[in-house]
Amino acid sequence: MSYDPTEYLPYDFANRRHIGPSPAEMSDMFDVLGVADLDALIDQTVPRAIRQAEPLDFGKPMSERELLHHMRETAEKNKVLVSLIGQGYHGTVTPPAIQRNIFENPAWYTAYTPYQPEISQGRLEALLNYQTMVSDLTGLEVANASLLDEATACAEAMTMAQRVAKSKAPAFFVDENCHPQNIAVMQTRAAPLGIEVIIGAPEDLDPEAVFGAIFQYPGTHGHVRDFTDVIAALHEAKAIAVVSADPMALCLLKEPGAMGADIAVGSTQRFGVPMGYGGPHAAYMATKDAYKRAMPGRIVGVSIDSHGNRAYRLSLQTREQHIRREKATSNVCTAQALLAVMAGFYAVFHGPDGLRAIAQRIHRKTVRLARGLQAAGFVIEPDVFFDTITVEVGLLQRGVLQAAVREGVNLRRVGKTKVGITLDEATRPEVIESVWRAFGLSLRDDDLTAEYRLPGSLLRQSGYLEHDVFHMNRAETEMMRYMRRLADRDLALDRAMIPLGSCTMKLNSAAEMMPVSWREFAMLHPYCPADQAQGYAELIADLSNKLCDITGYDAISMQPNSGAQGEYAGLLTIAAWHRAQGQGHRNVCLIPTSAHGTNPASAQMVGWKVVPVKSAENGDIDLEDFRAKAEKHAEALAGCMITYPSTHGVFEETVKEVCEITHSHGGQVYIDGANMNAMVGLSRPGDLGGDVSHLNLHKTFCIPHGGGGPGMGPIGVKQHLVAHLPGHPVSGGSEGPVAAAPYGSPSLLPISWAYCLMMGGEGLTQATRVAILNANYIARRLEGAYDVLYKGPTGRVAHECILDTRPFEKSAGVTVEDIAKRLIDCGFHAPTMSWPVAGTLMVEPTESETKAELDRFCDAMLAIREEIRAIEEGKIDAENNPLKNAPHTMEDLVKEWDRPYSREQGCFPPGAFRVDKYWPPVNRVDNAWGDRNLVCTCPPMSDYAEAAE
Amino acid sequence: MSYDPTEYLPYDFANRRHIGPSPAEMSDMFDVLGVADLDALIDQTVPRAIRQAEPLDFGKPMSERELLHHMRETAEKNKVLVSLIGQGYHGTVTPPAIQRNIFENPAWYTAYTPYQPEISQGRLEALLNYQTMVSDLTGLEVANASLLDEATACAEAMTMAQRVAKSKAPAFFVDENCHPQNIAVMQTRAAPLGIEVIIGAPEDLDPEAVFGAIFQYPGTHGHVRDFTDVIAALHEAKAIAVVSADPMALCLLKEPGAMGADIAVGSTQRFGVPMGYGGPHAAYMATKDAYKRAMPGRIVGVSIDSHGNRAYRLSLQTREQHIRREKATSNVCTAQALLAVMAGFYAVFHGPDGLRAIAQRIHRKTVRLARGLQAAGFVIEPDVFFDTITVEVGLLQRGVLQAAVREGVNLRRVGKTKVGITLDEATRPEVIESVWRAFGLSLRDDDLTAEYRLPGSLLRQSGYLEHDVFHMNRAETEMMRYMRRLADRDLALDRAMIPLGSCTMKLNSAAEMMPVSWREFAMLHPYCPADQAQGYAELIADLSNKLCDITGYDAISMQPNSGAQGEYAGLLTIAAWHRAQGQGHRNVCLIPTSAHGTNPASAQMVGWKVVPVKSAENGDIDLEDFRAKAEKHAEALAGCMITYPSTHGVFEETVKEVCEITHSHGGQVYIDGANMNAMVGLSRPGDLGGDVSHLNLHKTFCIPHGGGGPGMGPIGVKQHLVAHLPGHPVSGGSEGPVAAAPYGSPSLLPISWAYCLMMGGEGLTQATRVAILNANYIARRLEGAYDVLYKGPTGRVAHECILDTRPFEKSAGVTVEDIAKRLIDCGFHAPTMSWPVAGTLMVEPTESETKAELDRFCDAMLAIREEIRAIEEGKIDAENNPLKNAPHTMEDLVKEWDRPYSREQGCFPPGAFRVDKYWPPVNRVDNAWGDRNLVCTCPPMSDYAEAAE
Repeated sequence: MSYDPTEYLPYDFANRRHIGPSPAEMSDMFDVLGVADLDALIDQTVPRAIRQAEPLDFGKPMSERELLHHMRETAEKNKVLVSLIGQGYHGTVTPPAIQRNIFENPAWYTAYTPYQPEISQGRLEALLNYQTMVSDLTGLEVANASLLDEATACAEAMTMAQRVAKSKAPAFFVDENCHPQNIAVMQTRAAPLGIEVIIGAPEDLDPEAVFGAIFQYPGTHGHVRDFTDVIAALHEAKAIAVVSADPMALCLLKEPGAMGADIAVGSTQRFGVPMGYGGPHAAYMATKDAYKRAMPGRIVGVSIDSHGNRAYRLSLQTREQHIRREKATSNVCTAQALLAVMAGFYAVFHGPDGLRAIAQRIHRKTVRLARGLQAAGFVIEPDVFFDTITVEVGLLQRGVLQAAVREGVNLRRVGKTKVGITLDEATRPEVIESVWRAFGLSLRDDDLTAEYRLPGSLLRQSGYLEHDVFHMNRAETEMMRYMRRLADRDLALDRAMIPLGSCTMKLNSAAEMMPVSWREFAMLHPYCPADQAQGYAELIADLSNKLCDITGYDAISMQPNSGAQGEYAGLLTIAAWHRAQGQGHRNVCLIPTSAHGTNPASAQMVGWKVVPVKSAENGDIDLEDFRAKAEKHAEALAGCMITYPSTHGVFEETVKEVCEITHSHGGQVYIDGANMNAMVGLSRPGDLGGDVSHLNLHKTFCIPHGGGGPGMGPIGVKQHLVAHLPGHPVSGGSEGPVAAAPYGSPSLLPISWAYCLMMGGEGLTQATRVAILNANYIARRLEGAYDVLYKGPTGRVAHECILDTRPFEKSAGVTVEDIAKRLIDCGFHAPTMSWPVAGTLMVEPTESETKAELDRFCDAMLAIREEIRAIEEGKIDAENNPLKNAPHTMEDLVKEWDRPYSREQGCFPPGAFRVDKYWPPVNRVDNAWGDRNLVCTCPPMSDYAEAAE
Repeated sequence: MSYDPTEYLPYDFANRRHIGPSPAEMSDMFDVLGVADLDALIDQTVPRAIRQAEPLDFGKPMSERELLHHMRETAEKNKVLVSLIGQGYHGTVTPPAIQRNIFENPAWYTAYTPYQPEISQGRLEALLNYQTMVSDLTGLEVANASLLDEATACAEAMTMAQRVAKSKAPAFFVDENCHPQNIAVMQTRAAPLGIEVIIGAPEDLDPEAVFGAIFQYPGTHGHVRDFTDVIAALHEAKAIAVVSADPMALCLLKEPGAMGADIAVGSTQRFGVPMGYGGPHAAYMATKDAYKRAMPGRIVGVSIDSHGNRAYRLSLQTREQHIRREKATSNVCTAQALLAVMAGFYAVFHGPDGLRAIAQRIHRKTVRLARGLQAAGFVIEPDVFFDTITVEVGLLQRGVLQAAVREGVNLRRVGKTKVGITLDEATRPEVIESVWRAFGLSLRDDDLTAEYRLPGSLLRQSGYLEHDVFHMNRAETEMMRYMRRLADRDLALDRAMIPLGSCTMKLNSAAEMMPVSWREFAMLHPYCPADQAQGYAELIADLSNKLCDITGYDAISMQPNSGAQGEYAGLLTIAAWHRAQGQGHRNVCLIPTSAHGTNPASAQMVGWKVVPVKSAENGDIDLEDFRAKAEKHAEALAGCMITYPSTHGVFEETVKEVCEITHSHGGQVYIDGANMNAMVGLSRPGDLGGDVSHLNLHKTFCIPHGGGGPGMGPIGVKQHLVAHLPGHPVSGGSEGPVAAAPYGSPSLLPISWAYCLMMGGEGLTQATRVAILNANYIARRLEGAYDVLYKGPTGRVAHECILDTRPFEKSAGVTVEDIAKRLIDCGFHAPTMSWPVAGTLMVEPTESETKAELDRFCDAMLAIREEIRAIEEGKIDAENNPLKNAPHTMEDLVKEWDRPYSREQGCFPPGAFRVDKYWPPVNRVDNAWGDRNLVCTCPPMSDYAEAAE
């Protein structure tokens, strides 16, 4: 018998599952592009000079089954003990309904940042719930939609305090009760900005000496204090008071707002988000109304749509999308949206009564624990506490800690003679008994008499979570339907392409995602003993090796938990190296004008002077200008920041020259890795001359965008910089940390690792090649209808292309926004609007989209062009037309239709699915109205009925 | 300090999460009902005489966290070895995208059977894909939408053969190569019907002696044979040929249709559905076009809607919903829809090339395994095989089996001297090496030379899976979106109440569902050594104890894997007991005319004569008629089958009398447990006089309906019947089995167990009470608009109520179907239509629906009543009105609107969500057209364009 020798590989994840176009589709695409094959296209597109010498080789790629088997074996090398280490990370109970319906639901996790509010009403509502929760719990008027982690939130609060304080004192006071990682990150951030950090006890604070101060409660060793008086003294001195507080404690304790705090920060991790060995979690920030416009991060607000109906959107968005270059004080341009959504739902799920009861139980368990220890003669501090106690054990410290581990419990080593214990909602009575046994006590946790060790003056007097959403029926049926309704209002990758330029919205495959839920990855405390995290250690080591191979760098730091933070960490590393070379004065950074706003912002955060470099006509870096500026600043040149391929979507031929010029003047080269999806397997930033790059794992390496975070931005560096990478108070290193946890948000790393393992070197390279194919296919199909702004010398684009829509404003009064909103009618998330060039659309299809989906998009874009033409030719009205009225809602259909075009034309343009049509829940959102009338917590319905009138 | 002593319990699953109405809502409902509290309502509703003496007490209910902790501990008592036992159960690779997006997605698993096609187009399409796959692989024209398991499918094929055979010979021939459980179930089913089963080798078959025969390939010991000649001989004798075949093998081997088979059956488990210790899985059945109307089970077909567009629906539905009482030959009234959907998607996911490649790999691995054994001198049979070989080991049998277990592998014990080995797509090379080691061979599985041990004559000549859907782009992005699109077309519990009378569509909570995915429950072979299934053993024992407490019975058999099969098993148990008492002649069964059609069908399957008993005016059993019939048939009385509370939704006061009458004439009482949700904690069928009941775990005990299965129908019996419960060839017992696996579909049992553990006795009782509250609330709110057909003496209904919509046919020409379809416009799945009383609607809200959702439903029903009134009063047209045109689609809105009512009235009647409106993808489906033009496989688009004209 005989069989076909060209065997079909059924488990070929790389070619069959991850990559969108089928072999047959690709063949058709080659015809359209007029190339023989993919090799030919890549040869035309990617300059020989920058191609890497050797192909990537990671051995045989794994099938999904092999991956899950391997992942399971790795996971089992992590030991899940009960961690009572505290220090900002707590056991928590993720309600199963939230886990299943949000955390494990692609409708939530594949969504993009809600810049296009009409297709994001669901997650905007969920984030508004979160903000309302934060605002209520902290007692401050405005909260943002989350920050990266508590430590960076503290640092952001510090710099915000400096911005808004009337005091011009040079120092910032840090309560010694803050968690060590919070202190360390603030120190890291303060140094380059020339902020003096004073660490001490609150009672020793001299208000006149500082522009602001931060206090924490519960303190890292358990203290709960009322900071009202010291805050009043700060205000007297025109300084700003920041309070870092555990939101669970705030369910019982006097809130920061009631103490007079100007800014509150903290972590919402324990609101149902697993510890995940350090992240991702949502940190919160809230402030007084007066300071809201100075607050970093995203803020969801309430506005109205073109019909006057309530609609949510990101407020004050201009602050963020194009981070103010020269004035930047923060480079934060993301959030932890998925985790904030979970924390917000945790509050919805429990309501104020539930949260209060959970907080009470945690406290009462801690009292029971303390009672047992005290009865046996142990001395504990503090006298009043919420969930954390510190026990004096003298020489027994090591023995107690080890005994606890034998009991399956991790406690915290405090100093040389103390042990810290922090309880949480997941602490079972058996666990308390285990802790007692670790102290040599054989007790039963059966005296459940309620006892409270909180003074009346510290008890919370105000209500919270009074909005209806926190008082909805708590039946799971109702919760599940609410989550589904919100999910259905949004358009995510599980329904359509999201062709956002520079965002790389590729497949987040189920096999990659599933291990994230496993307890062996989810339940580890970031500061647990290293021998309990051997699975993570292996994963991180192997992934780092692969990323080094991919980038041409010698080492990777996994600490930065966003791309922008990667930039910052990379520049800090360069600065530290300069100092070590005795070149600490170097402080000029060349940045092309086409750079993403985070580049100059990051440079300013390390205290550098940004010198912009012009773009040439064709969008490339103006090499002459670059050379001239480098020469001019040769003495002070710290380095340059470039993006490759450029933000214009082109492989510049001159990149190596740029690097050489920089090096020849003593500078270091930072290559922004945002566009790595156009390089993997073809070209390595380390080979081009880069000294540092960050990698957006949430772009190139499959971590989902989660509706606006989480992200991961590890950096790769050359050998000479390795010693200067970020360190951490727990894991060591000579430099300070940039994030709260040593490995950033490590529970996401299984996703990127899985991607590398299932793709193999060849598959990763193929992904790059097909990403380039897909972009060029779109560029070609739209030729004639839209001008593609920048192309390489052979007329090809890299992995994205910029469509010039500026001419239509003149010819037809059609703006880029009109086109973006019209695409919603066609069933698409709009491409990136007005970046990097105002008035244009940047399209990045990624390798995961099929030709059929690309065609649907092109058909939609071509039809839109015809609509524009009809306006140009006077065939349809310039104001009342499908573009200006876009997006169309179901309400439009139901109502009287008084438009000069048909319902069919309005609602079912080419591209729109017929049966499976996506309907935006609101018409076009009025951003200006929302910014004028800023409301950032859940409003009562009545307000909006009025507002609309 | 002081806290409120009335503590809020944040983890109270029973009262806060499972039960819909909040305490405040319940209080409002009491006011509407005019009762002081729930006790008062229950006192009015449930007769004192039938109330149970003691409250249910299962100790403290668990929180979700405690449950998952406990479940984890139980799961870890199951040992997951690699099972190569075969015998119809195989390792498989569930594609992660299918696991996440279907198996773990409430949009799929909470859906109901697609009786209302307009809101079920998604799963109907998925099931049609499945049918097409089965039809293609078997080479037979028509397939059904799945049966319970392979063994029962064999039995159904046997009785179907008897129905359609022209031969009137009395016997049925069973190939000795059939799996033992298939043979055993056929024997069970044959006996009461008087069918003689002849077991033997195919070559010994005398075609003249039989009305039909069944053959299996691969045979249970691995043989693959061509049955073409013996089938021709059968046809010569006017007998029917059934072939049981593994669909994976059919990807390589000559298909049953090509051999001339009339009927093919088998299991699709290995198409991506985990073994689950025995189930649930989808068994398939396919037949020739000529016999399609004789095929049991559901068949999805293609029809058109009122606008002539293609629409899917259940074909020939009248065969099933109201199983033909006196003529019934099967009581099958469910399918394994969720599992069939998964298997169908597995085929879509892999396509024909992928399936063929997987089959080839399985075969080649088996050849490699065999080669290694043979080289070492072991004798294996058969010479040609697909995936199964049998090795002669003589006295070494025990040693080899034990050595294999030490290697982490289960092999099959065959006879006293042989070992069976069956490989699958999940078999890794390491596993093959482990098997060799168990045989004492130290070999490496590294000679991957492709070798085939299949004769050319047995190779498949025909193509399969040629329809477009099996050739769609295999990118996960595309697959994920296809699954999402189909899910979105359907209306399931995750979006709205499904108030189906008698179906108990209650919450399937995430905490209950999550353990089902755990490998410790999912990956066990049903015939693995008992010491590897200790977790299951504990679970089954504890759940059985709880179900005994709940029902008042003494023992539970978990074997029946549907409610109807529970009935059958229960009656078999009674029949066996009668025989043991020397009363084997008893064969009369009294059944009220109001009974579900499965009751008489089941009775006939055990060979009993059904004697119908009249209903009294008030819907109760006519006690006089019952007594008279019992007396008349006293000599032959086998028993009675009653439903409690009755199918009319009323607690009859006379139930105990009915039982006494039956017992006094020597009969046994079968109480149908379909309505147990009205009894748990309040009344026990065992106390009322029942001898046997089945429990629908998918109704009362939270197993989701999965779009039309899986279900579980364990039976409880009194002590005297215990010895006569179904046995099993593997697990023992004196009686034959009714299902393929000893515990039916055990991987579902964690759901029901979790429910019991989290509710506790009090919570379960409260669920019953609130189910009654909710039903009475609806009955009261609709009072005046609709007549409630049957009520108890105090004017209350039990847990459901029948709304009499018959008068509207006369008054307004409005049928019950019009109302059901209009409810779709309001965003609801219709209640049960025309059962148990033609022309009425039966509503069962369950305890899990909130008052808000009940009100939404009542508002919709009241508005519909007003629409009917408008017709009655001549205010709107009798033909062109919202009821007759229902359901309205988005297409209706877009098109010219020429109706005498507004778009708003048509599409947004009270109840309909505004932003979150559910749109049916098709208008009203034409069932008659579909039955006339029966098409049960995926048609090309072109066909339907033509058909519609």
